[in-house]
Amino acid sequence: MSGNTFGSVLRLTTFGESHGAALGGVLDGCPPGLELDEAVIQAELDRRKPGGGPASTARKEADRVRLLSGVFEGRTTGTPIGFVIENSDQHSKDYDALKYVFRPGHADFGYQAKFGLRDHRGGGRSSGRETASRVAGGAIAQEILRAEGVSVLAYIVELGGIEARVLDPEGAQARPFFSPDPEAPARFEERIREVKAQGDTLGGVVEIQVLGLPPGIGEPVFDKLDARLAYALMGVGAVKGVEIGAGTAAARLTGSRNNDPMTPEGFASNNAGGILGGLSSGQPVVARAFVKPIPSIALEQHTVTAQGQATTIRVGGRHDICAIPRIVPVLKAMTALACADLLLLDRRLGRER
Amino acid sequence: MSGNTFGSVLRLTTFGESHGAALGGVLDGCPPGLELDEAVIQAELDRRKPGGGPASTARKEADRVRLLSGVFEGRTTGTPIGFVIENSDQHSKDYDALKYVFRPGHADFGYQAKFGLRDHRGGGRSSGRETASRVAGGAIAQEILRAEGVSVLAYIVELGGIEARVLDPEGAQARPFFSPDPEAPARFEERIREVKAQGDTLGGVVEIQVLGLPPGIGEPVFDKLDARLAYALMGVGAVKGVEIGAGTAAARLTGSRNNDPMTPEGFASNNAGGILGGLSSGQPVVARAFVKPIPSIALEQHTVTAQGQATTIRVGGRHDICAIPRIVPVLKAMTALACADLLLLDRRLGRER
Amino acid sequence: MSGNTFGSVLRLTTFGESHGAALGGVLDGCPPGLELDEAVIQAELDRRKPGGGPASTARKEADRVRLLSGVFEGRTTGTPIGFVIENSDQHSKDYDALKYVFRPGHADFGYQAKFGLRDHRGGGRSSGRETASRVAGGAIAQEILRAEGVSVLAYIVELGGIEARVLDPEGAQARPFFSPDPEAPARFEERIREVKAQGDTLGGVVEIQVLGLPPGIGEPVFDKLDARLAYALMGVGAVKGVEIGAGTAAARLTGSRNNDPMTPEGFASNNAGGILGGLSSGQPVVARAFVKPIPSIALEQHTVTAQGQATTIRVGGRHDICAIPRIVPVLKAMTALACADLLLLDRRLGRER
Amino acid sequence: MSGNTFGSVLRLTTFGESHGAALGGVLDGCPPGLELDEAVIQAELDRRKPGGGPASTARKEADRVRLLSGVFEGRTTGTPIGFVIENSDQHSKDYDALKYVFRPGHADFGYQAKFGLRDHRGGGRSSGRETASRVAGGAIAQEILRAEGVSVLAYIVELGGIEARVLDPEGAQARPFFSPDPEAPARFEERIREVKAQGDTLGGVVEIQVLGLPPGIGEPVFDKLDARLAYALMGVGAVKGVEIGAGTAAARLTGSRNNDPMTPEGFASNNAGGILGGLSSGQPVVARAFVKPIPSIALEQHTVTAQGQATTIRVGGRHDICAIPRIVPVLKAMTALACADLLLLDRRLGRER
Repeated sequence: MSGNTFGSVLRLTTFGESHGAALGGVLDGCPPGLELDEAVIQAELDRRKPGGGPASTARKEADRVRLLSGVFEGRTTGTPIGFVIENSDQHSKDYDALKYVFRPGHADFGYQAKFGLRDHRGGGRSSGRETASRVAGGAIAQEILRAEGVSVLAYIVELGGIEARVLDPEGAQARPFFSPDPEAPARFEERIREVKAQGDTLGGVVEIQVLGLPPGIGEPVFDKLDARLAYALMGVGAVKGVEIGAGTAAARLTGSRNNDPMTPEGFASNNAGGILGGLSSGQPVVARAFVKPIPSIALEQHTVTAQGQATTIRVGGRHDICAIPRIVPVLKAMTALACADLLLLDRRLGRER
Repeated sequence: MSGNTFGSVLRLTTFGESHGAALGGVLDGCPPGLELDEAVIQAELDRRKPGGGPASTARKEADRVRLLSGVFEGRTTGTPIGFVIENSDQHSKDYDALKYVFRPGHADFGYQAKFGLRDHRGGGRSSGRETASRVAGGAIAQEILRAEGVSVLAYIVELGGIEARVLDPEGAQARPFFSPDPEAPARFEERIREVKAQGDTLGGVVEIQVLGLPPGIGEPVFDKLDARLAYALMGVGAVKGVEIGAGTAAARLTGSRNNDPMTPEGFASNNAGGILGGLSSGQPVVARAFVKPIPSIALEQHTVTAQGQATTIRVGGRHDICAIPRIVPVLKAMTALACADLLLLDRRLGRER
Repeated sequence: MSGNTFGSVLRLTTFGESHGAALGGVLDGCPPGLELDEAVIQAELDRRKPGGGPASTARKEADRVRLLSGVFEGRTTGTPIGFVIENSDQHSKDYDALKYVFRPGHADFGYQAKFGLRDHRGGGRSSGRETASRVAGGAIAQEILRAEGVSVLAYIVELGGIEARVLDPEGAQARPFFSPDPEAPARFEERIREVKAQGDTLGGVVEIQVLGLPPGIGEPVFDKLDARLAYALMGVGAVKGVEIGAGTAAARLTGSRNNDPMTPEGFASNNAGGILGGLSSGQPVVARAFVKPIPSIALEQHTVTAQGQATTIRVGGRHDICAIPRIVPVLKAMTALACADLLLLDRRLGRER
Repeated sequence: MSGNTFGSVLRLTTFGESHGAALGGVLDGCPPGLELDEAVIQAELDRRKPGGGPASTARKEADRVRLLSGVFEGRTTGTPIGFVIENSDQHSKDYDALKYVFRPGHADFGYQAKFGLRDHRGGGRSSGRETASRVAGGAIAQEILRAEGVSVLAYIVELGGIEARVLDPEGAQARPFFSPDPEAPARFEERIREVKAQGDTLGGVVEIQVLGLPPGIGEPVFDKLDARLAYALMGVGAVKGVEIGAGTAAARLTGSRNNDPMTPEGFASNNAGGILGGLSSGQPVVARAFVKPIPSIALEQHTVTAQGQATTIRVGGRHDICAIPRIVPVLKAMTALACADLLLLDRRLGRER
């Protein structure tokens, strides 16, 4: 209820600032007996790493996760899983100029208004670095789901207005930009290079699929599966829109076009995105997150100082041009956390499926 | 955590089925000393009533709210506010045919899968009737906000693909279809008549504005204001997409176009929709909900029986052609509940603004 | 988090004042398929009724419960169970004198301090009448437990300093004063008559047993079974102490005397009261609640007015001499709610026992 | 809801096992602008250290706390405060013998029943070491309270049946055994020596006072201040009873004896222990926790193996004879967490006092 805990019976609590001592979290409610080690978590963190490609920051963040509790002899014990990711490579001085000025499109002003003071270094708690803890927690949630035969896929369907034309979600996991289209990365890179030259940045669209979720997961009426997914995804910085299945387009369809007919073999289509009445239908759950362009641009922008005086700013530094590739594992993590929580919560009903 | 409570320190718990004895709820955490009577709540409920116009159902639902507690001599006492809305005009027999068949696009299948049994009459808990309790609770939340100088507006910006061309949100509150455009209702009605003749149904888009919210409302990192709004709105049946500010379109903008410059007089634009880093910026909060067409259509559809056999169904009865006009007060209520909750929660920090 | 909801996955939310329109509540999270009707709940409410015997108030409270939702064709559906108990026989005028004075030993002063205004009629929300909603919710919790082979017994082991000498918990449920000792009621009545003649009131001690609870119920570390029981019982007005098993006496035992040896046939004693390390051990769970005397006494007492001036008060009216008999079903209800919640929560771990 | 988080708006989540890599936690909801450094927390941890005196274990636990987030330039930022305490001096081998046997009076059996596997080394999560995280979180809660003029005192009023005869709570904080009686420590030590020679262990009683809490803190009806305190204190391992004010003795008083008269100068007595109707009265809050003797005794005990076969056990090792001195800072921490949480929660009502 204070903002930094996600979930009802599977609960991730995170902490950490961009340039503080360390990031980390506690995952409480993980079932016992699950095989788990640091390597499984590290693999997901590595997917989030700034790295290859022209879209990403030059910072070298090691992002080594260290498990502190809740695992014994390679298996979870049912007690809370604590973990830390030490911060390093902190060029805090780079941010001194930002102490007394609010960056447009950033959380600086809101934090100052809310808390009356803020850790200005790299955005503090509002930095994208915070999501490393989500990815670590989400990696464990994915293991919980895997043990139940559920998997989560996430991939880029649009970047800077360039759409992926082919949809191969499985293949996307190993491809640059988590692209479902083998041809798209080249076009993405071209678009990024073009915008980078202009000192500008790009956004995009990420699609997520949850496969194997049994029907009936989700809680009427406020904690519907789609409501919890929207909460999970919109809670990731930079996401400005979330849709399920046919999504925004459904608003223009007629009922006869939008309804998915049922047959003895299953649903004949999936406009519902695998969710009806807030409960999973057994079909793949399909969600899309719309990500705004990174607000840190090299171009000069109008803004104000902490004292409210007009000034201009160029946000240089070691920033990404496009958050999309790095946000993919974060959205996957949040989806996994939301689904695993509702899956475990559903068990309390004591019904066999 | 069991799905039927919304909020952290201002908590609405609801109950009730479409054809049960009564609907109702409990609003806990309302500050003391607020003027409140049944009329204020009834006025909001009346806005949700099926009623005028060709879009709405022929059912006459009285929807009379009765306050049971928490108010003394015309003012809230700080204790929980219980309320009931008795059900009446229940043509439960109309639904006998639906006992053993799943309606496409409805929650029937999911409820059966989750609970192993269900109240099939009018959809039971999954019926839109459930939202009457939300509207009642939301009416009180709006009073809490009003006392803080905050107001919520909601209006239809698109219906069945027909867009409102003029944006007069204040005027919309008293106009048919909560239309922000004085000319749009005629076009909406025409579109509805057309589709009704085909035995089909329509969806649309609702825009919501929150005016007067002070900066800094929302909780990093999971309980961001936009995350809570997305959760609140996507938790309303039929909503398949939610966006904030520039929303889905932001994914195609560059950073220089999307960032809202700051000036000593305030923000120069509002692509952020009044939310930066998950915290209110002091600008109007702007959200849009994308509503799918009502799944109950008179046209014949393919579906299955509870035993999994193929069959067809025509959902006649007294159903709406379009949920949009009736969903507007519901979305307004959920927005008010989300904002009032975060506003009260923010007070714990003990900062003066 | 606002005080009027109890439980994590089985959640009771209550509302209602002593002299408001009605009391009631919502039980969310009840598993589907459980047989339930109003008679089962009414039977528990009737146990709480002021009634026979010299200890109880002359008020005739009908306390008729009405189920509003969550039950269909005699079985729970898994959706929230709403219920109301209408208030009647309200001699509100009797309380006019109490509007501007604080009764010693009552919540009057605290409510005024907290909320700045209060419903003074019969104590408003702080009245013992509030517990009717708990008893109704607890009756359903007992049905959940019964389906799992778990039962809850509660009985008076001491009243006004008079101890029960025989311990027959099963028989106590049908005996006056829920007395485990067939001989004790006569002595209890004598003590009550004596104190009543003096214009004074009495307290006592209630013992509760939970039978059949499987081992491992409870959550380390904060939500231990004993912690949740203490929270449940101490949250009942007038309870000033709670102990588990050997309880307060354990503080004077040595380890060798207090430890319960384990044998292949089970534990050889039960000083632990069925709880070790916060988890049920499979033995009967034994708790005791220490109840203070009713603060409404006919004797003159020193107090102050709402303006802080010295005055005296005699609290006449139709009050009980002793809360103990009526508190027994309340403590049973709270115990059932706490245990059923933790039992259902434990299921999320997905382990077979 | 999964057991390892305490609080509603000030939330402590802890993790860590006795012989795992580290203990730690996250305190979320701490108001911004509070002066805080590691030394303040370390001072409380040092009070919990096994140390001087014949009662305590020979283990040298450094228990160095390290702050990881939420503090910037010496002040809290309002973001979550993460901290770790590395484990060291782990003689895990000492516990190999306990892998397949359940220690009487311990949580071993319950953990095995609940989770199906357990970290047997030193009790794993059920070890008293877990409370180090509580003490760290509680130290910060005490700083929050201090800023509001509220302080918490805790001291031993009885050890092994030996009572403190003098009550000097302020002085107790610096005295051996946190004794409120300057003469008592000598008698305590004698009793401990005596029982140690017998291979046995002792319990005792700790009293806690909260000074300066304004009236009206606590939430009707389930989250009463006394209910939350009972939950907080009973959730500490080894506590088997909790009482408030006159407590268990109140059950034998008459109303006229137990009621605290009110005068223009305040309450004339404090049998209520500073809590009426679940809300603070402005008087000192007084609670007592009854602590069982440590179950690890050198004497031979009957028990069973994990396979259910009869065996005997002597629990040697480096254990305390008496938990009381070390539990005092833990109970103080839990009291501070409960009070600070309710104090901050109360602010949402927005009333000036």
